[in-house]
Amino acid sequence: MNILITSAGRRYKVVEYFKSHLNKYGGQVIATDLDINAPALYAADTYEIVPRITDDNYIETLINICKKYEVSGVFSLIDPELSVLIEYKQTFEEIGVTLITSNPTMIEMSLDKYKTYQYLNERDLPSVPTYITIEQVTQAISNNDLSYPLVAKPREGSSSLGIVTVYSFDQLGQLFKDHDNLVVQPFLKEKEYGIDVYVDLISHNITDIFIKEKLRMRAGETDKAISVKDYRIEKLILDFIEKTTYVGPLDIDCFEYNGNLYISEINPRFGGGYPHAHEMGIDFPERIINNLNGKANPDYSGLNYKENKVMMKYDNIMIK
Amino acid sequence: MNILITSAGRRYKVVEYFKSHLNKYGGQVIATDLDINAPALYAADTYEIVPRITDDNYIETLINICKKYEVSGVFSLIDPELSVLIEYKQTFEEIGVTLITSNPTMIEMSLDKYKTYQYLNERDLPSVPTYITIEQVTQAISNNDLSYPLVAKPREGSSSLGIVTVYSFDQLGQLFKDHDNLVVQPFLKEKEYGIDVYVDLISHNITDIFIKEKLRMRAGETDKAISVKDYRIEKLILDFIEKTTYVGPLDIDCFEYNGNLYISEINPRFGGGYPHAHEMGIDFPERIINNLNGKANPDYSGLNYKENKVMMKYDNIMIK
Repeated sequence: MNILITSAGRRYKVVEYFKSHLNKYGGQVIATDLDINAPALYAADTYEIVPRITDDNYIETLINICKKYEVSGVFSLIDPELSVLIEYKQTFEEIGVTLITSNPTMIEMSLDKYKTYQYLNERDLPSVPTYITIEQVTQAISNNDLSYPLVAKPREGSSSLGIVTVYSFDQLGQLFKDHDNLVVQPFLKEKEYGIDVYVDLISHNITDIFIKEKLRMRAGETDKAISVKDYRIEKLILDFIEKTTYVGPLDIDCFEYNGNLYISEINPRFGGGYPHAHEMGIDFPERIINNLNGKANPDYSGLNYKENKVMMKYDNIMIK
Repeated sequence: MNILITSAGRRYKVVEYFKSHLNKYGGQVIATDLDINAPALYAADTYEIVPRITDDNYIETLINICKKYEVSGVFSLIDPELSVLIEYKQTFEEIGVTLITSNPTMIEMSLDKYKTYQYLNERDLPSVPTYITIEQVTQAISNNDLSYPLVAKPREGSSSLGIVTVYSFDQLGQLFKDHDNLVVQPFLKEKEYGIDVYVDLISHNITDIFIKEKLRMRAGETDKAISVKDYRIEKLILDFIEKTTYVGPLDIDCFEYNGNLYISEINPRFGGGYPHAHEMGIDFPERIINNLNGKANPDYSGLNYKENKVMMKYDNIMIK
């Protein structure tokens, strides 16, 4: 079995994990990126340089790569590509390729911070209060539901890009004048958790949960984290998966503030912190390969990893 | 022979390079940091957690570590520690430990952007014009020596921290009101180079130059770079070393603007991009070990590496 990983970027480890599984059975990983200097390309068995995901020829290029290498499954490692790929789910299926990702509703919701808030709110799932107009914000402040400092961010942003702390009404007014599609949220973060979840593509049941507390961020990514077994978070995630229709690998961010948990972001793909889970015995590539082979994985059986294990990232280098 | 590397932080590769050399002859690397979660600690043969470099007991702690492990040489991987260590050069020498670093004058100059500018300027070495008062800036603008946008940064800062682009006189006035010890420089950067240099501790002659063009930065560090053989830069570096009294490993930053080169920063220590040089055949650890063994290294013999080789960083992870 061969698997295609698109927009591989810096995600060397994820590519490596798949390669090590697939190579055992004569399978291969093909990785793509638009940048020949994307390190993760070189963790794959083969790589191909492709156009930008917004290019008219992008999907055709991927389809040709799938045919050339007899690919069984494909997934992307970046958010903006998820909605591009899902549009062509049927096209991929027609040539026997499974798209390893959630359905369009879940993807669309995940990419939009306001829709995420509304969706979670409607289902009694705790979310970060999110406002999209200056009137909503003013109202919430006068109701004492909200106070400065606030956080403003792009409604569809990712990687901590464009996040601004807001200290005054004047600053808020200027931001709304200068930017379309902003969301405003309270600054409620005493602790931050990242949760890796796998939902079986066949049984649609959850199979794994791995919870880490983020200790240090660097360039918008978790640089250090510690594994925790927080049963409040486990319960929240099980409830969340029950009420949504996600499948495949997921990365969910949670804040803790004043003893309460808030789901802040859902990424329907491998999270940047997945290697922490993997090195501690969780194995999403194996789950995916089983699913592509037509086998459902065993249902969830608890938090099966050691607590208090710290993950530290450090630089490796490659010369090409 | 045992070597102590202090403030090891994330510099896993540098520790690893020393370890691989020393272990061949029964020697060891000892690494220290104040943070048990500093990844580079775990690349060493042994590590010790130490107080903050400003702590009253810091030097005593290092001296005790040197005695405990019969250390022959010690060096730090961060700028602020250089001036702390150099004060105790004699104390280290009395117990037979060589401080692998430059003299106090060179260290003090390197840590201060305005002194660097003055020092280079006085010696006809091309430097980035640097101003420390609003009057100097206003004067330079009215003489047409300077124009917006400008760059303001902390006079003793490092790691790209606190760098602000300045677009107007009002903004500049506010910055000088809010901050002490600012420097202002023109925004002159079309290309940026990082140069790794070794000056022999015994002969005081230069032994190696490695030049890379920086292609992409991330969290204040070079993420991607390409090796170049630029003979203008080589000439500049040879001239620079002739006119200064640096010894040991150096990391020099250069800008290119309008076809002219400007030295922008001198770090009298292993640079963050050193692994690029090392993986291409340059070997500062070997130079240092020779020097500690009382042997001078051969003098500089040209740019001995391949051009157009791209270095890419990617994340490795460790669990502890």
